[in-house]
Order: sequence, then C-alpha cells, then structure tokens
Amino acid sequence: MSHQHYPSSLLENAVNEFSRLPGIGRKTALRLALHLLRQPETEAEKFGNAVIQLRKEIHYCTVCHNISDTDICQICAHPGRDASTVCVVENIRDVMSIENTQQFRGLYHVLGGIISPMDGIGPSDLQIASLVERVRAGGVKEVILALSTTMEGDTTNFYLFRKLAPFEVKVTTIARGVAVGDELEYADEVTLGRSILNRVEFSNSYK
Amino acid sequence: MSHQHYPSSLLENAVNEFSRLPGIGRKTALRLALHLLRQPETEAEKFGNAVIQLRKEIHYCTVCHNISDTDICQICAHPGRDASTVCVVENIRDVMSIENTQQFRGLYHVLGGIISPMDGIGPSDLQIASLVERVRAGGVKEVILALSTTMEGDTTNFYLFRKLAPFEVKVTTIARGVAVGDELEYADEVTLGRSILNRVEFSNSYK
Repeated sequence: MSHQHYPSSLLENAVNEFSRLPGIGRKTALRLALHLLRQPETEAEKFGNAVIQLRKEIHYCTVCHNISDTDICQICAHPGRDASTVCVVENIRDVMSIENTQQFRGLYHVLGGIISPMDGIGPSDLQIASLVERVRAGGVKEVILALSTTMEGDTTNFYLFRKLAPFEVKVTTIARGVAVGDELEYADEVTLGRSILNRVEFSNSYK
Repeated sequence: MSHQHYPSSLLENAVNEFSRLPGIGRKTALRLALHLLRQPETEAEKFGNAVIQLRKEIHYCTVCHNISDTDICQICAHPGRDASTVCVVENIRDVMSIENTQQFRGLYHVLGGIISPMDGIGPSDLQIASLVERVRAGGVKEVILALSTTMEGDTTNFYLFRKLAPFEVKVTTIARGVAVGDELEYADEVTLGRSILNRVEFSNSYK
C-alpha cells in the first residue's frame, strides 16, 4: 500500500490521520475513512467534533488529576466517598478499572505514569509532589499504592513510601498473588511464592 | 464494559463515536480516545477536521462517480488515459485496487454497489442509467465488467450486458480462474472448472 494513489487528497488526509492512531494500519484507516464517507454529513461532524472537544475541553481534577468535565472530578466531589483513603494509580484507565470493581469507596491520585529511567521519566515528571501535599494537608489516613507489579512499579512504590514516611499515614500496596480463578500449576513461581509469604487468615480471605 | 462509568462525558462521547466505527469495540475505542487525549491539542484538531472535511467537501466525479476533490476526477481528466475503454466497478476501493495494479489505462464507472434484491438494491439504486448514457453518447468501444464473482455480481453483469446490447460496444468481463501463485489442489472446483473452460493460448497467457 506504500505507493497507494488516492483519488482525493481529502481521503488521503483522513487515511493519514486514522493511521496515526495506535493499532490502526493503512488498510484499516482506509476502511474507516470510506465508512465515514458513506454516513450522513452530520454523523461525520459529530465524530470529528467529539474528538476535537474531548481534547480541547477536558479538565484535569485539581485534587486527584483524573480527567473530568469540571475542576473537581465527580469522585473527589462525591460526598459519599471516603476522603481518608487515597488510592495511587498510574493513569486514568486504572481509575476506571478499579471503579468497575465497585470495591473501592475512597479517592484516587493519578500519578500520570511511573518512575522509569529507561523512558526518561523521573519523579518530577509525575504528580508526586501534589500527593505529598495532599497527605501533608492532613485528613488522609491510608495511601494504597496500586501500581503495576513490575520493576518500575516497585521502584515507584519504594520512592513513594519514603516520601510519605515523615507523615502519620498508613501506606499499603494492593495484594499480589494467584489470580482468582487460576489453577496453581499455571501461576508463575514468583507470584506463587509471594502469595504464600503474604498468606491471609482464612476468615479474612473470602471477605 | 457495559456498565462502564466514565470520569468525563466528553470521554464517553468520544468513546461512543469511535465504537460506532466498523470493527472498533468499546475497549479499542477507549484506547484510541485516551491516545488522542495525550496528543497536543492541534493533533486532535487535525484529526477531527480531516474527518469533517472529508465528508463535507468530497466531490463525486460527474463522469465516473469516483470520489474526487474536483467535479471531474483526476483519472477522467487525465489526457493520457484511454477514454474508449470503461471499466465498471462496484465501489471506490475497487478503483484504487485496479489503479494499484498499474495494468489499466482506461477510465472507470463506479456503480455504487451491485444488484442485490436481498439487500433491497435494484438497478435504479445504482449508476446504471449514467453508464448507458456514457455509451450512448459514443466514443466508448469496450466496457469491462469488473464486478464481484458472486451471484449478485453475475446478476448485475447480465443486467448490464442486456442494457448495453443495443449499442455498438464490446462488453467483456475480467478473467476468472486460479489465482496467480495458487496451487491447483487448493483451488475450488468452480474456479478450476471455469479456468479450464476459459483457457487461453499459451502465447497469450504470460502477457
């Protein structure tokens, strides 16, 4: 498709834009552009404007840095949520994943990534200072670190733990172990070992 | 994902729009929307405007009905193309496919579909009258029918053949046979049978 000749520069432009998206090749991009061409003009406008508005009008919550339509997000503004528990996550999608579980009633703090020297991401590139400030301001009793269970996640966990050490706040990490529904023989050794070390009282394990 | 709670109605709106596209599920739609959110505002605008402009400003060639930036498309307007040979195709993508082969120097006629009673598509829904008019106007010596090799394609071929019968024009169909590079044992019986019936002189077969 590298020497593809387009019958219209408008089409070529749209295909170029679509194929810039992650996971969208030029063939798929052409299929999507031709699909939109067959839709009523209002549909194409709705689609295009949805994208433009999303980027232009999005707010980031000034408390937790989650995306929002307002200055304070729905979660931080919700009177029924427990403001004394703050769950630290890497990104917006993690907030959505945890919200989907309906198991957490506290607030969030979106770091915007994890410390990764290989990718040139240091602590100052993340929302760490504002996390420390939230804790310093008082009212937070527990900070739950819910980062990736990777080396970068562990590094960030340690960094945050040290930064929060001066304050009277409990710091926890999400449980790591054999996934629910998994058979032991398919669990990797590190996970299995960790799940034995971090075993819990039977009376607590089905809560 | 059915009860997915979105932190922003702008995000939800964008995800809804993306997931309306063919082959894009809600998970992919979310990934694409979050990707655009990380891009500079100008990038999201370029993307959105490319889609809106594509649909709004596209022209259809008044001669062949191919899409175009102008009233007459680049192919029809090209002085080097052979206007006496018209290749009839279903859609724009077929034009692009044939152009990619660089084997055809004639002009096209885009029907906009094929006759398909099951889908409620009859001759009057297609650009058939304008094809007949092109031939009636004179100057066309050959009409090549390059439609799908399906029942609907065959039906449309027969219909067009009858419509063009009153005129002094040669009507041909594209060759059907074993695909180049295919082994015989994997070709289906109908195709193989057709390729034997429509065998060509050896001296012509490698042209």
